[in-house]
Amino acid sequence: MATTQRQYRIEEDLIGELKVPAQALFGGQTQRAIDLYPLNGEKPLSAYPELLRGLLLVKKLAAQTNLNTGEIEPDIGQAIVSAVDLLLEDIPTDAFPVHAFHGGGGISSNMNVNEVVANLANRHAFDRPLGSYQPVHPNDHVNLNNSTSDALNTACHLAVIDKMKRLDGELAALIGTFDEQGQQWQHVLKISRTCLQDAVEISFADLFGGYSSQLTRHRQRLETDTSELYRVNLGGNIIGRKGDCSEAFFNRVIDGLNRMTGETRFVHSDNLFDASQSHDDLARVAAGLDQLARALLRIAKDFRLMASGPETGLGEIRLPAVQPGSSAMPGKVNPTIPEYLIQCCMQACGRCYSVQMTQDHGELDYTPWQSVVISNLLDAISVLTSGMEAFRQHCLAGMEPDLARNAHNVNTLIPTLIRLKQQRGYSFAARVYKESGGDLEQIRRYLKE
Amino acid sequence: MATTQRQYRIEEDLIGELKVPAQALFGGQTQRAIDLYPLNGEKPLSAYPELLRGLLLVKKLAAQTNLNTGEIEPDIGQAIVSAVDLLLEDIPTDAFPVHAFHGGGGISSNMNVNEVVANLANRHAFDRPLGSYQPVHPNDHVNLNNSTSDALNTACHLAVIDKMKRLDGELAALIGTFDEQGQQWQHVLKISRTCLQDAVEISFADLFGGYSSQLTRHRQRLETDTSELYRVNLGGNIIGRKGDCSEAFFNRVIDGLNRMTGETRFVHSDNLFDASQSHDDLARVAAGLDQLARALLRIAKDFRLMASGPETGLGEIRLPAVQPGSSAMPGKVNPTIPEYLIQCCMQACGRCYSVQMTQDHGELDYTPWQSVVISNLLDAISVLTSGMEAFRQHCLAGMEPDLARNAHNVNTLIPTLIRLKQQRGYSFAARVYKESGGDLEQIRRYLKE
Amino acid sequence: MATTQRQYRIEEDLIGELKVPAQALFGGQTQRAIDLYPLNGEKPLSAYPELLRGLLLVKKLAAQTNLNTGEIEPDIGQAIVSAVDLLLEDIPTDAFPVHAFHGGGGISSNMNVNEVVANLANRHAFDRPLGSYQPVHPNDHVNLNNSTSDALNTACHLAVIDKMKRLDGELAALIGTFDEQGQQWQHVLKISRTCLQDAVEISFADLFGGYSSQLTRHRQRLETDTSELYRVNLGGNIIGRKGDCSEAFFNRVIDGLNRMTGETRFVHSDNLFDASQSHDDLARVAAGLDQLARALLRIAKDFRLMASGPETGLGEIRLPAVQPGSSAMPGKVNPTIPEYLIQCCMQACGRCYSVQMTQDHGELDYTPWQSVVISNLLDAISVLTSGMEAFRQHCLAGMEPDLARNAHNVNTLIPTLIRLKQQRGYSFAARVYKESGGDLEQIRRYLKE
Amino acid sequence: MATTQRQYRIEEDLIGELKVPAQALFGGQTQRAIDLYPLNGEKPLSAYPELLRGLLLVKKLAAQTNLNTGEIEPDIGQAIVSAVDLLLEDIPTDAFPVHAFHGGGGISSNMNVNEVVANLANRHAFDRPLGSYQPVHPNDHVNLNNSTSDALNTACHLAVIDKMKRLDGELAALIGTFDEQGQQWQHVLKISRTCLQDAVEISFADLFGGYSSQLTRHRQRLETDTSELYRVNLGGNIIGRKGDCSEAFFNRVIDGLNRMTGETRFVHSDNLFDASQSHDDLARVAAGLDQLARALLRIAKDFRLMASGPETGLGEIRLPAVQPGSSAMPGKVNPTIPEYLIQCCMQACGRCYSVQMTQDHGELDYTPWQSVVISNLLDAISVLTSGMEAFRQHCLAGMEPDLARNAHNVNTLIPTLIRLKQQRGYSFAARVYKESGGDLEQIRRYLKE
Repeated sequence: MATTQRQYRIEEDLIGELKVPAQALFGGQTQRAIDLYPLNGEKPLSAYPELLRGLLLVKKLAAQTNLNTGEIEPDIGQAIVSAVDLLLEDIPTDAFPVHAFHGGGGISSNMNVNEVVANLANRHAFDRPLGSYQPVHPNDHVNLNNSTSDALNTACHLAVIDKMKRLDGELAALIGTFDEQGQQWQHVLKISRTCLQDAVEISFADLFGGYSSQLTRHRQRLETDTSELYRVNLGGNIIGRKGDCSEAFFNRVIDGLNRMTGETRFVHSDNLFDASQSHDDLARVAAGLDQLARALLRIAKDFRLMASGPETGLGEIRLPAVQPGSSAMPGKVNPTIPEYLIQCCMQACGRCYSVQMTQDHGELDYTPWQSVVISNLLDAISVLTSGMEAFRQHCLAGMEPDLARNAHNVNTLIPTLIRLKQQRGYSFAARVYKESGGDLEQIRRYLKE
Repeated sequence: MATTQRQYRIEEDLIGELKVPAQALFGGQTQRAIDLYPLNGEKPLSAYPELLRGLLLVKKLAAQTNLNTGEIEPDIGQAIVSAVDLLLEDIPTDAFPVHAFHGGGGISSNMNVNEVVANLANRHAFDRPLGSYQPVHPNDHVNLNNSTSDALNTACHLAVIDKMKRLDGELAALIGTFDEQGQQWQHVLKISRTCLQDAVEISFADLFGGYSSQLTRHRQRLETDTSELYRVNLGGNIIGRKGDCSEAFFNRVIDGLNRMTGETRFVHSDNLFDASQSHDDLARVAAGLDQLARALLRIAKDFRLMASGPETGLGEIRLPAVQPGSSAMPGKVNPTIPEYLIQCCMQACGRCYSVQMTQDHGELDYTPWQSVVISNLLDAISVLTSGMEAFRQHCLAGMEPDLARNAHNVNTLIPTLIRLKQQRGYSFAARVYKESGGDLEQIRRYLKE
Repeated sequence: MATTQRQYRIEEDLIGELKVPAQALFGGQTQRAIDLYPLNGEKPLSAYPELLRGLLLVKKLAAQTNLNTGEIEPDIGQAIVSAVDLLLEDIPTDAFPVHAFHGGGGISSNMNVNEVVANLANRHAFDRPLGSYQPVHPNDHVNLNNSTSDALNTACHLAVIDKMKRLDGELAALIGTFDEQGQQWQHVLKISRTCLQDAVEISFADLFGGYSSQLTRHRQRLETDTSELYRVNLGGNIIGRKGDCSEAFFNRVIDGLNRMTGETRFVHSDNLFDASQSHDDLARVAAGLDQLARALLRIAKDFRLMASGPETGLGEIRLPAVQPGSSAMPGKVNPTIPEYLIQCCMQACGRCYSVQMTQDHGELDYTPWQSVVISNLLDAISVLTSGMEAFRQHCLAGMEPDLARNAHNVNTLIPTLIRLKQQRGYSFAARVYKESGGDLEQIRRYLKE
Repeated sequence: MATTQRQYRIEEDLIGELKVPAQALFGGQTQRAIDLYPLNGEKPLSAYPELLRGLLLVKKLAAQTNLNTGEIEPDIGQAIVSAVDLLLEDIPTDAFPVHAFHGGGGISSNMNVNEVVANLANRHAFDRPLGSYQPVHPNDHVNLNNSTSDALNTACHLAVIDKMKRLDGELAALIGTFDEQGQQWQHVLKISRTCLQDAVEISFADLFGGYSSQLTRHRQRLETDTSELYRVNLGGNIIGRKGDCSEAFFNRVIDGLNRMTGETRFVHSDNLFDASQSHDDLARVAAGLDQLARALLRIAKDFRLMASGPETGLGEIRLPAVQPGSSAMPGKVNPTIPEYLIQCCMQACGRCYSVQMTQDHGELDYTPWQSVVISNLLDAISVLTSGMEAFRQHCLAGMEPDLARNAHNVNTLIPTLIRLKQQRGYSFAARVYKESGGDLEQIRRYLKE
């Protein structure tokens, strides 16, 4: 039908002609990727706004640098910069539909961005139709002095640095809440356990101080891991040879990046071949997140355990009731928020596992699995942040110890014996224990006040 | 403002009152879950249509069985059945917005469905407003004789059985294409390699026959693994005690399930306590998928390797050119389709890893991590199916051997020596090799035609 | 010094001359492997007696088959058979010192066995010195119609089949003990928990019946997984071409294997190229063991949890005291046996992880990582068997419920309310709960006997 | 028989009497562990000399500190110090037979050491028989102010710090050899590949410089990870409360440790509760090793790939022939050394996997899985060190490029086109490519010298 035919425009590349939706901001290479890699429940590039933002910043930076070095005509360079600024203001989701991971080292993600920027630049600055690619060309101009390898890699670094700030903020808040709750209940003693068996008494401040210390350590490690990402390989395009972009571009691009982001920490990677061979700096962050996830998982499990009962479990703490626990059992309130955190952690570990698999499957001069690295890494950051936030807000902040239960627990047999041992020595305590047949009342009589 | 206030209705539960969007088909428990577990890039229940369909079938089955046993009034039961049928025809995505995984063993997924069915039933059969829950109540009627534990678990089984059919079909098609391509190029000899070193000559039919045989075995295993899912724990609600649903319901529900699904294979789980303690039948399918993913990953890597070059690699096969390989290097075509499959496999392995983590974190009478199991399992099935389909269509079906290269390869030194050895014995061949200094021309002279 | 010089004999191969200890039963290729791959805490081939036995059986089988087909002189063939029989009677550990895994697809393991058999055969049947390799030659005779590929692969299958019998026996014993203990305490009611919160009462027979059922299912799955190993690729040597061993050998070797082992189930692999490309049948067993390990881990954790206390934990069961729990805390007994099982399971999962890694790193016609597969697989079987045995003997068999504690637990609030609900309906129970303010005494008055 | 009876001595503990071999340096608690946890192929404590050394140093340090603070009688303290010194000189393997991992947080390892030190001290200083435990008692004196928790944890730190020095040295040597080989062959150009397809030419110095840079980064990370282990929890015994050892001991023990080890970096853990709750500092090292293993695995695979052939593969480099590659194929030399490294890496990843599993299974105040952490961690360090050493010595150091092959490769189509593009621009090169039909001779004519 005539109308439907006009709903498409025809574009052409080395492979041949193909139809692109007439109003699509993207072009033929994006369309090829859409056709080759249907989503089927996986996510598109647009689901990763931090990555998209990173790619757009890289394109803007390239245009600015090329303007600086005189490698691009001023009106074309300026048109690119304006187009990117427009996109950064409000990213049009349906302009970036390529599958978040696909073959060729993420080339379709890079080309999707190149095409959209070129189309927008042509339309806004030169009043040219979509698909004209004139005067601004996706490869010749938007991608000038970039290759997928260095553009995407740098965008990944920017995206993770950005998104880790959210996680870091939430982790800091969680640590703060542990400290506050520890402070608030510092005078409440509780029993500690080794191998799940009764041991000595401690305070809630002791327990929560341990968690806080542990999470603080993870936070510092993640800060260290993330700081490696300020080394970027911009200009080390294709596989790390300097000569594949202009020397002028290479020499100025890092300064430009620092200026653009208001940072001072960005530097060139020590070795650009290395940066192309492997993405282990991103994998290192994933490993750090995996460790954080395991730490959080166990803390969440501790909370479920301490809140177990209400009667026949440990019952040391009470968690806020946030939703009915069962349709069949009245009065039942389940620890659904720690359980959500636990599942977020399991989810994150799976994401990080996919990241690690890319490492031993790397190869030669260039490892093309970066899309699977970045999508899983951003997902892992996201789901951990969500889990921590829910846990802090809906569980930890409102947790209260059961005062009676804890008071009872710290006066049971084992902590009493240990107190006796501290006052009178091991053999004395052991003898009293034996002679009393473990009778708590008798044993208590030997205790000094 | 007056208008916005009217955009909400007020619902109430044990925790208290809360606002629900006035036109929402879901109710208060769903709304609590939305508030507690914002998505942040994770998926809602509606992203898993097979699971949703499974839950709806379970609800319809419960209503039918309750009608059968007389445990529900006919008009209420019928209203539920009709509401489910309406939903099954066209599932309204925004009616099922709860986070795909959350605490409490997936209770919010079950309640989301109960609430939507109740609201629809009340509206359509009784012309009652949303949120009235009269005469049809989400718990008392839609969930009658169900608990989250058995309803969700059965729905998971239905969902995986359903979705595995798609994967199985695609796997069969892939095997078929390997067989066809093997057949088509059976007369083309190629060199084989052990430890990546030249060995004897084989045909493409030999190589592809190996792949086909391997994938056929995975297919059979997955069929065996999936067939375990026909054991369901309907009626073994909460933690496996029979008495927690009516005996009449328990005795009829499996027959009903077989009737409803046109199956004969559904039976009750051997031990219902066991079915509540662990979901290892689903984890077993995940383990099978993980193994399939690894097999596919290596096959895809083999294709990249055999197609490497075009000049300085192995160059034995040519893959269809489906997209430009590089913006900087003219003539370059990359094996993006095998690379997509590889990444799909890495993705699937990560999903299956999350599934396995739930197993060792199971506990006591009931393991509440089923949501993380099912969402990852369905995602893994999905991404593997996608990867296989793309590989079959866009790569394998159009692959061609490089005839000249293969002909050359099979006449190189090592296969020639082995041919000589087969004709004249090991020591003869070894002596010729030594005396000729490895000169191929001289060695060939000893060969019989 | 003269004496030390005479402690070595000189052997020669394609690489050159090398010294071998004068009395060593092994020869030069083994010595090369010793020099190249020092153990440094890893294990030698001799640490895997089942594998060694498997290799020896394969050698004996080859000699017998070659005798049968007339491909070997009778005295040489008979000498090989006798030498193998001698070794099978009492395997001399220091004759098999090669690193359990090494390069080239385990070639050094195969050659170690070939050399030892040749040396023994020459010494015993022909009174020839070690290192003479005359008249019996390791390659020409002991390895006749074998290649490392099919000989080692078949030996791996034999080894796993053999060792899995031990595991299967122990798993059966464990299941039996669960059944016995369930039977013994079937009249003791206990509380069940969902999400670690109090739920309904069940019996110990219910709980242990669930475990028993679960483990029985794992047992059946492992039986299915292991049964795949009766397909062997003997004669499909190098990479699966039939012609690389004699047709007569190929046609008779499977019958010989069944005869030798008293089995009827051994058959040739469906596709010999496939069998060389991948070892996924062994990996499938590893995946099954990984799942078993996770199931056992959670059961062991359940035991620790139910035994937690003695006072401030769940305290439902008492485990036998097998060793003092602490040097500092008198009276403390820790659940060290379940903890040992837990750690055995963690160990097994790590071993199985190494196995799985080999799968996606497979390649082309032949995957050379079989040594890492078999050593980790045998270790995993071993450590799981150990863990189960210790748990059964030293923990499960002597476990006793705390009668008073369990009797108290089943009469607490939640199970009482559920009983009321079962007698009088959900809304009645909910109203009583609310009006009584959760007072147990008041609630109980509504209960019928 | 009388003699055999006298071969045992009788010891007694809280559980009861038991037989200990008369001449055993260890005592009853060790014997219980032997009986409870037979090895079955797993390793004893003695297989980890670094750990044993760590434990002995902790014991010596405790005795010295107790002498210092006057908490132990001088002759007893001195006897302990002397006994430890004797053991450190030459550790008697059969004195430390307990299973390397077992229940209760490694209590049997600690007690094995306590018993041996006590027995030796009594024998040498006081001429008392084995098993007398007088005047020196394993718990009251050797373990004074220690608990398993802090003693073992500190010993683990010492062991890993110690063993990582070996790995670090080997890693440095490997990096050095990459640099040397890069230097030596810096003038040899080779083709690079992206997505395994021909790309631009680089030098061997470029490629190897990338590897070197990558490994250097891993080395630095591991140094950072390991440096966390200088924080120890000595004196924070049981679960982190300071009061469970004497204040004087607590205040002096770290100085003593620095003095004893000639270090200055040891400090107390920031938070001792945290140190008891989790061992994530050790797990962090394991994560770092896992990452190193994956990096090495891919490098080793790169070597196999570049050496593939000799004729029908990439054939760019030649590896030293270290052992015959096949008994059936004359002239075949396999890359067995890279294959060994690959398998070492797979082994290490499995070990590290077991370590990580302990993290999410941590619990409450004390996580009892440290034995499984330390044994796997030490094994992972060991096997990676072995793999790197073999690879460096027997493969990398002797590798040579195939000069002719590399010279040919860099003048093939794609690199030629890219050179043309660099001289004349993208569109010029693309046009030439098209018009020439990819004919290399024609294309070359456009190239300037």
